[in-house]
Formats: sequence, C-alpha cells, structure tokens
Amino acid sequence: MTEYEAFAIELAREAARVTLPFFRSDIGHEDKGGAAGFDPVTEADKQAEAAIRRLIAARYPDHGVIGEEYGEDRPDVEHVWVLDPIDGTRAFISGLPLWTTLIALRTAGKPTVGVIAQPYLDEIFVGGPSGARLLRGDVETPLAVRSCETLTDAVISTTDPDIFNGAELGAWTQVRATARLARLGCDAYAYAMVAAGKMDLVAETSLKPWDWSALVPVIEAAGGKVVNWRGAAPDDRGQVLAVGDARLIDQALVTLKRAAA
Amino acid sequence: MTEYEAFAIELAREAARVTLPFFRSDIGHEDKGGAAGFDPVTEADKQAEAAIRRLIAARYPDHGVIGEEYGEDRPDVEHVWVLDPIDGTRAFISGLPLWTTLIALRTAGKPTVGVIAQPYLDEIFVGGPSGARLLRGDVETPLAVRSCETLTDAVISTTDPDIFNGAELGAWTQVRATARLARLGCDAYAYAMVAAGKMDLVAETSLKPWDWSALVPVIEAAGGKVVNWRGAAPDDRGQVLAVGDARLIDQALVTLKRAAA
Repeated sequence: MTEYEAFAIELAREAARVTLPFFRSDIGHEDKGGAAGFDPVTEADKQAEAAIRRLIAARYPDHGVIGEEYGEDRPDVEHVWVLDPIDGTRAFISGLPLWTTLIALRTAGKPTVGVIAQPYLDEIFVGGPSGARLLRGDVETPLAVRSCETLTDAVISTTDPDIFNGAELGAWTQVRATARLARLGCDAYAYAMVAAGKMDLVAETSLKPWDWSALVPVIEAAGGKVVNWRGAAPDDRGQVLAVGDARLIDQALVTLKRAAA
Repeated sequence: MTEYEAFAIELAREAARVTLPFFRSDIGHEDKGGAAGFDPVTEADKQAEAAIRRLIAARYPDHGVIGEEYGEDRPDVEHVWVLDPIDGTRAFISGLPLWTTLIALRTAGKPTVGVIAQPYLDEIFVGGPSGARLLRGDVETPLAVRSCETLTDAVISTTDPDIFNGAELGAWTQVRATARLARLGCDAYAYAMVAAGKMDLVAETSLKPWDWSALVPVIEAAGGKVVNWRGAAPDDRGQVLAVGDARLIDQALVTLKRAAA
C-alpha cells in the first residue's frame, strides 16, 4: 500500500471514532427532544471534518483541503484532500447504516486515492495506485468489478429519482427500463458495490466534488470507470455515471447524454 | 424473555449461519460465471428455510409453518411460524446489507412474536409479550418508537415507488409531499427503524403474510402500530402502513384510503 493510501485509511478510522458515537445515539435513551434540539448528524459531520483536518495539517502541512463543512484551504496546490465526513446525512438521520465517509486525495487536479468507509459496518473500501480492496476487521479482500456486457443484464442504482430534473428523470427512467434490476437509496455506498462487483452502474446528479472525488480511485482501481454524462471526467456540473464494465458507458450515454448539463 | 421469543431468536441465529456465507460470496473470488449459473440468494433462502423448519419440527412438532419457499404445513393450528428467510432478495443480490430474515409466531391467527434479523450487521430486532429489543453481539438495547405528532415532521419510507399501482402511487406521492424526509430501498429494515424510533412511517403494498407478520410484534411491542390501508389489521390484500406514533395513522389514511384494496 502507498503512503497516501495508508494515510487515507488512517483518516477514515479517525472519522469513524468521531462519527460512530453519534449514529443512532438516541436508541434506547429517552427523547431529550425540544425544537431547539441538538442535531447529531451536523455535529458528527463538523467534528469529524475538524479531526481529519487536524491530522492532515500535522502530517502534510503543505497539502490543501476541500471539505463540505469547512470549505477550501489552498485548493490549487499539488496535493489536495477532498472530504465529506458524512455522505448520506438522510440515511444517517434515518438510522440506516449506508451513509459513508468519503476521503480523496487529488493530485495535480485528479483524484488518485479514494476511501469509502462505513463505520457501523466496519468497512473501508480503498482504491489507489496499489489497487482496490475492502478492509473489514482484520480481513482484507481485493475488489474487482464484474463483467457486464449489456445494460439489459445490469444491476443499477441511483439514490432518489426525485433529485433528477425533468430531462434527467426521463433519461434515468429509460436506463432503468432497460436494466435487469434497480436499487434506490444507497448514496455513495452504491459505488462501493460497483467496485465490489455486486452492481454494474450508478447514475446520479448534483454531486459536489467531495461527493464524487473519492469514488473515482476506488472504482477505477477495481477495473471500472467513472465519467460525466458526456463521457468525460466528472466535473462541477455534478452528473456522474459509474460503471464496472466500460462497455456500459456508451449504452447508458445514448440516453443520459440527452440530459447532460 | 418468553420461551417463544427465545426460540425465535434461536431460529434467526440458525438462519444466519446458513445465509451469511452466501452473501457477497463472490467478492474477491473469480467469476465462476456461466448462464446456467448458481443462484446464491435462492440457494441461501431455501437452505435457511429448511434449517429453520427442522428446528421447529424437532422442538414443537405440533406447530404449523408457513414459509415463502416451502409453502404451508398445518396453517390453521393454534401456533404457526411464518417465515421469510431472506426478505429483500434484490438487496441481497446487490450486495447491500439491508436484506433481513423475518420470523413470526402467529398465535390463534395473530402475530405475537416477531424477529427482524440482519446477519451481516449482527442485528436481531425482536418483539413480543416481554417487550421489544435490539440484540447486537452481547449488547441488548430496548426499542421504543418516538413521538411524531404530525406527518409534516415524519421520516417515512417505502421500498420502491415503482411497486405501487397508479392509485397507490398517487396516494404515496401525496404522503411523501407532506412528510419531512423519505428514504427508499429498505425492504423490511425500514420497519426495524420505526421500532427503533429512527423513522416514523412506512407504507408498502403487495406484501405477503411472511413479509408483514414479523413486523407487527416488533413495532407494536416498541409502542407503534401496524394496520392496512383501511386502518384494520394487515391482511392478504398486502397493503401495510406502519407508524411509530398512532396519531399518524389518520393523517396518512386520509390519502392512502383512497387507494385501499
């Protein structure tokens, strides 16, 4: 494993230490209620990002950071960490263990190391120059996408069709009608399943750089591909298409391209 | 804990022993492929139900059994076990740890003990005469629904709006438009979150008795309520509404009733 891959895992474990106690923290406790109430997910998100930023500043003081919670710090230097401590805040709020911590290292503008971590499941999906793997407890499993020649055989996913605009919804609906099976509600966890060879395609929109940067190295090191809805590298327009088998790109873009921003 | 509650947990643990090795069994292995292929979820489902049925026959030879895989065996006796070893086969296939094992004991026609178990998460949600709790490892946490006075504050869920017929979809869409937040794709796991006080309402259709029987004791022992879309006990028509706070029933039924079978 490379130095930066190992450090990204260290960051994910630090984030888990912070976020996990907030997850379902009210189960089995009395409702402390009150409209002015404490917001566990915002608190977890902020504290985790602060903790990650402290580690980065200590180890790599010349690296930049872009985070959902605390904004940009030297986003144009050679090495920039791109962070979303809790992707899937609605899953977190709802008690569902499919929210993730997303950590990417962007090198010269391109994501080169990525981590998708789910602390409650004790899962860290990591991808980078040395390959893609799933860490769970002491077990390390290599990740590899599966082959899927045609969209009609594909297991596909998007988080919520309601997020799409009209053109996007039309495009998604057509892709879905072609695919074998669709799953909803997974947030970034769906991309981990593409890297693991359990899903074949994920299409989403309105993703910010901290939403998609970590996905790219995980999926690409596992043999897949992440593009925007025009087939180029994902960008600020936020439309993302991830596939395990690159042959699916053109088949999905026939439709998605019509709704490309 | 009552004898039957403890036995239902024993059955869930036996099912986990069978199902878990099949879950994501191909991650990190070469694709053994082939169209004639082995179907892990069907195999896991069948083997688990057979294993559960063996334990029931050995311990309570006069009890009946209704299972998704192997049909009915004396469904009209006083005590009948209602089984779905893998609810959420599409989640299972997609590698998502939100499929569950559902086990209910129906006494004189009414579900009195229920288990919703997720083996990969090591979670067993159990409800019955002695209350509702979550077992995870050695930790036992009491389950209690949360208060939610109005639908506008509610976190709600359904597995996939595409399952609804036209009238049902209209009704769901209106409920969703009122609610605070909706999550999709959870199968029976959403009901466990209602019992845990993390979600407030789940509405689904086309549920079979083995899909809904286990949910009733878990949610009701946690303080919630499960009804059909007319407000009566759930039945063979398969439309189910589960709420943590009973005040939500009438608010949801205003709409759902128009689509009631």
